[in-house]
Amino acid sequence: MARLILFPVPIGATDPNTTLPSYNREVLNTCRTFIVENIRTARRNLKTMGYTHPIDDVTFLELNEHTDTTEIAHYLDPIAQGENVGLMSEAGLPCVADPGSIITAMAQRSGIEILPLVGPSSIMLALMASGFNGQNFAFNGYPPIDERGRTAMLRTLEQHIHRDNQTQIFIEAPYRNDQLLHFLALHLQPITRICVACDLTLPTQYIRTRMARQWLHDPPELHKRPTIFLIYK
Amino acid sequence: MARLILFPVPIGATDPNTTLPSYNREVLNTCRTFIVENIRTARRNLKTMGYTHPIDDVTFLELNEHTDTTEIAHYLDPIAQGENVGLMSEAGLPCVADPGSIITAMAQRSGIEILPLVGPSSIMLALMASGFNGQNFAFNGYPPIDERGRTAMLRTLEQHIHRDNQTQIFIEAPYRNDQLLHFLALHLQPITRICVACDLTLPTQYIRTRMARQWLHDPPELHKRPTIFLIYK
Repeated sequence: MARLILFPVPIGATDPNTTLPSYNREVLNTCRTFIVENIRTARRNLKTMGYTHPIDDVTFLELNEHTDTTEIAHYLDPIAQGENVGLMSEAGLPCVADPGSIITAMAQRSGIEILPLVGPSSIMLALMASGFNGQNFAFNGYPPIDERGRTAMLRTLEQHIHRDNQTQIFIEAPYRNDQLLHFLALHLQPITRICVACDLTLPTQYIRTRMARQWLHDPPELHKRPTIFLIYK
Repeated sequence: MARLILFPVPIGATDPNTTLPSYNREVLNTCRTFIVENIRTARRNLKTMGYTHPIDDVTFLELNEHTDTTEIAHYLDPIAQGENVGLMSEAGLPCVADPGSIITAMAQRSGIEILPLVGPSSIMLALMASGFNGQNFAFNGYPPIDERGRTAMLRTLEQHIHRDNQTQIFIEAPYRNDQLLHFLALHLQPITRICVACDLTLPTQYIRTRMARQWLHDPPELHKRPTIFLIYK
């Protein structure tokens, strides 16, 4: 039976065997139609991930802020004709920290079977290595940009940490990473710990946990490097 | 430089190539010491995952509720002598929904480098396929057993769903899965949606999203099957 298949993509320029099971490559080659955010990077990722069919025969369906929602309604039509459709992320897991869940929600409403495949999640790799509670955690996306909103969010997250023992995870636009770390180091309670996890799965990988104020001294250079921030008591 | 390496384990009886990158096997064979929850299953998992050294030469360090904390303090000593130490989960990702973070927290305090490896996370696979918000989500572990605590928890989680657009994820002791689904179907608001994700990565995999009350009709048989529950609006 045809399915919607969710394909993770390596998070950075690594050999795909470092972060993807070989099974994913087998399944990848059963698909001729892919829903993607950006066609150019999707072509490149297909090649890197060992897609063996001529890329010119592939149908790419774009899913981004320019896509007309009436078009999206037809994206899963090939499945009714017995053909698998792939959903590929730009990096990491599809439908996690990206807008792919529009498609999976549509598949669920239509009773279409979904096959999620294993791959790298920078959120989970960071959580595993942080030393923080992995039995209760939340991913909060991006913090507000304005200082007042940011301060209010930190106050709420610190409440969850102390009241619910819940690790709090977030990300930032990569060119604002250094400012965010400085802001966290200054505005969190001194006893709150911060884990900074950067360039995960890459040779330059950096994962370190310190108390909030300690990050004011010798902070790492995070500018434009993909980084996950975690806080806990 | 020697490191603490975090090894995911397949979640069920599948070919490890379905859910583990081949790189993990290479790294596995650099370790002679493993911190594990249960030695018997760890031996079996090592074999399944392609460990090629004689298992009798392996040092297993047990980490479970019977372990003396003064012993744990020495578990990372081999790293100072230049030897990698592996931390293996019973199934899925180490330090996620298991007590492994005692070890990673100790490594972070000692400045030991940690290498988290990619593998199957039933939490993330379920989230990907649920159709729910993957840009904001929380894993809450196990719900309280008593009905009053359970009802209070559901009320709090529904608040997060509506106020913060945050997908709520939890698990249950596998023999209580059916009761939990019935409880959720009855006590959540009728417009709240429930995703049930069961036997992930296995041939019997089942992932389905429906409105709360719809689960009262034809519920799946979840008894003793590993299941993730997700709720969202």
